[in-house]
Amino acid sequence: MTQSAVNGTSSINSVEDEFRFSTDLSLEDIRSDQHKFCEERNWLQHHPPRNVLLAMVGEVGELSELFQWRGEVTRGLPEFTSPEKVRVGEELSDVLIYLVDLAEQCHIDLPTAVRDKMKKNALKYPVQRVSGKTDKYSSYPESKQETSDVGDIQREREEADGSE
Amino acid sequence: MTQSAVNGTSSINSVEDEFRFSTDLSLEDIRSDQHKFCEERNWLQHHPPRNVLLAMVGEVGELSELFQWRGEVTRGLPEFTSPEKVRVGEELSDVLIYLVDLAEQCHIDLPTAVRDKMKKNALKYPVQRVSGKTDKYSSYPESKQETSDVGDIQREREEADGSE
Amino acid sequence: MTQSAVNGTSSINSVEDEFRFSTDLSLEDIRSDQHKFCEERNWLQHHPPRNVLLAMVGEVGELSELFQWRGEVTRGLPEFTSPEKVRVGEELSDVLIYLVDLAEQCHIDLPTAVRDKMKKNALKYPVQRVSGKTDKYSSYPESKQETSDVGDIQREREEADGSE
Amino acid sequence: MTQSAVNGTSSINSVEDEFRFSTDLSLEDIRSDQHKFCEERNWLQHHPPRNVLLAMVGEVGELSELFQWRGEVTRGLPEFTSPEKVRVGEELSDVLIYLVDLAEQCHIDLPTAVRDKMKKNALKYPVQRVSGKTDKYSSYPESKQETSDVGDIQREREEADGSE
Repeated sequence: MTQSAVNGTSSINSVEDEFRFSTDLSLEDIRSDQHKFCEERNWLQHHPPRNVLLAMVGEVGELSELFQWRGEVTRGLPEFTSPEKVRVGEELSDVLIYLVDLAEQCHIDLPTAVRDKMKKNALKYPVQRVSGKTDKYSSYPESKQETSDVGDIQREREEADGSE
Repeated sequence: MTQSAVNGTSSINSVEDEFRFSTDLSLEDIRSDQHKFCEERNWLQHHPPRNVLLAMVGEVGELSELFQWRGEVTRGLPEFTSPEKVRVGEELSDVLIYLVDLAEQCHIDLPTAVRDKMKKNALKYPVQRVSGKTDKYSSYPESKQETSDVGDIQREREEADGSE
Repeated sequence: MTQSAVNGTSSINSVEDEFRFSTDLSLEDIRSDQHKFCEERNWLQHHPPRNVLLAMVGEVGELSELFQWRGEVTRGLPEFTSPEKVRVGEELSDVLIYLVDLAEQCHIDLPTAVRDKMKKNALKYPVQRVSGKTDKYSSYPESKQETSDVGDIQREREEADGSE
Repeated sequence: MTQSAVNGTSSINSVEDEFRFSTDLSLEDIRSDQHKFCEERNWLQHHPPRNVLLAMVGEVGELSELFQWRGEVTRGLPEFTSPEKVRVGEELSDVLIYLVDLAEQCHIDLPTAVRDKMKKNALKYPVQRVSGKTDKYSSYPESKQETSDVGDIQREREEADGSE
């Protein structure tokens, strides 16, 4: 990762909220590049869905290792050296590459799925309903008994635990 | 997720290799939408890096649950019903949204990082070196002793286990 | 890991179902050994709950990497070489050590919690109710509409998705 | 989980370091109970290694969800309500149950593997070598150039990145 990848445009915009990605790389760009990469190496045969899923879990583990002994870290990672930030960028990329690969192996149209999910999230958490409330971030079953309108989704979730 | 999200363009292209995403949604599109979504709800305060990382791990868990009792599944997920495929698309989306969110919180320029990582991968696994070899996918420490040129990276990896 | 760790007592018992662990190592044995290990190295200061949780996620990733390119594997891992099985044992151990460490950091009495959870599971899935049914392993929201008595837990779970 | 599971013996010992598990539940106890649980329900057929591994990843995700929006949490989880601590105990238990189940499916003698791994860790990090050093917890490739004796394992690890 080049230095620009670490800093992004944050050096230009001093306001944190204005951090943005410097280019418009699309999910389809990533998919086609990764597909070509695997095809050229005759590796597609090794990429059935569950293999790629486990590879992604492996990369999530490597990403987690970069954060594991640090305690809380600050936005922008000022606690990280420049090479450490490069490592974070590499592991984020590995997770993303396998995620896109997995979508391809599942024949899931990821861009449409993301758009649909973001619309669904917007409907689930209407601004006027959650604004100024931290319910989503703080509520648990027992505290739900005191909440009224927002807590229902979380409460259902807590009640519904179908795992062994 | 609409039906088109599940099928993508696969109905148009019968050749599996020709599956592709139907639109060109960029990482920056996702970042800006998610940023706006959180900002409107006053949720950015809850999104320091390690919070978002753990949220992503949670979504990876939900994705894994959709694959856990199935044994091996086939490319294109013919074993899944249409609503089940929608669920896979939703969980893939959740992982992606938090991944992009995490990159923003870390001030990592994800598109550049992905480009850089793919170049690095191409250099690490030159086509002429790995073509027709399954080394990356099969080799382990003891089998490395028989391999020659390709196995070094994996061998180093096996030898280097810095974890407790 | 010694050879006996790989084979366990399976060489004595030819029936797969009779595989069992060769010794009675307790969770408290692991906890006290790991506590002593960290204390002697002055490492307890680095083990607040979320640090240890992320370390465990890292180890789950390393474990997953051992299974990622293999397609389906068979009980007893006949596809693995002996050193590969040792690696699996080591990664399983790493996950377990951090899991026990995490329970300690959370002041959770893990043995009692496990006993309680297994009782809860037995109540949730009564033998007479689930015997011969694969509902837990096969049912999803839409197929739930056809099931009657067993599917309710899973259905609730599917309906309750409180994530963004 | 009963109240005692949440508090463990910590109410008896005021010194944090003296927290310990209240009973001596062994890994073999958990294995045999889980085996019997699955056998009675005719579920063993659904538990080949990779299925159980993905189920464990799912439970790690559920555990992570309990910690995701909290920022740093304190040893003993004073920020959690009593029911929230019960939830943590349940998810820790779910991870542990599937971990033991996975070891059984792999025919890995987990108690021996753990003992072996802890011995290996003790050799890798000798007390006299690491005492007072935070190398394991702080060093990264670039800072390794200044360290001398302890950093080699970590450095090798950083250099050896065999992933795509």
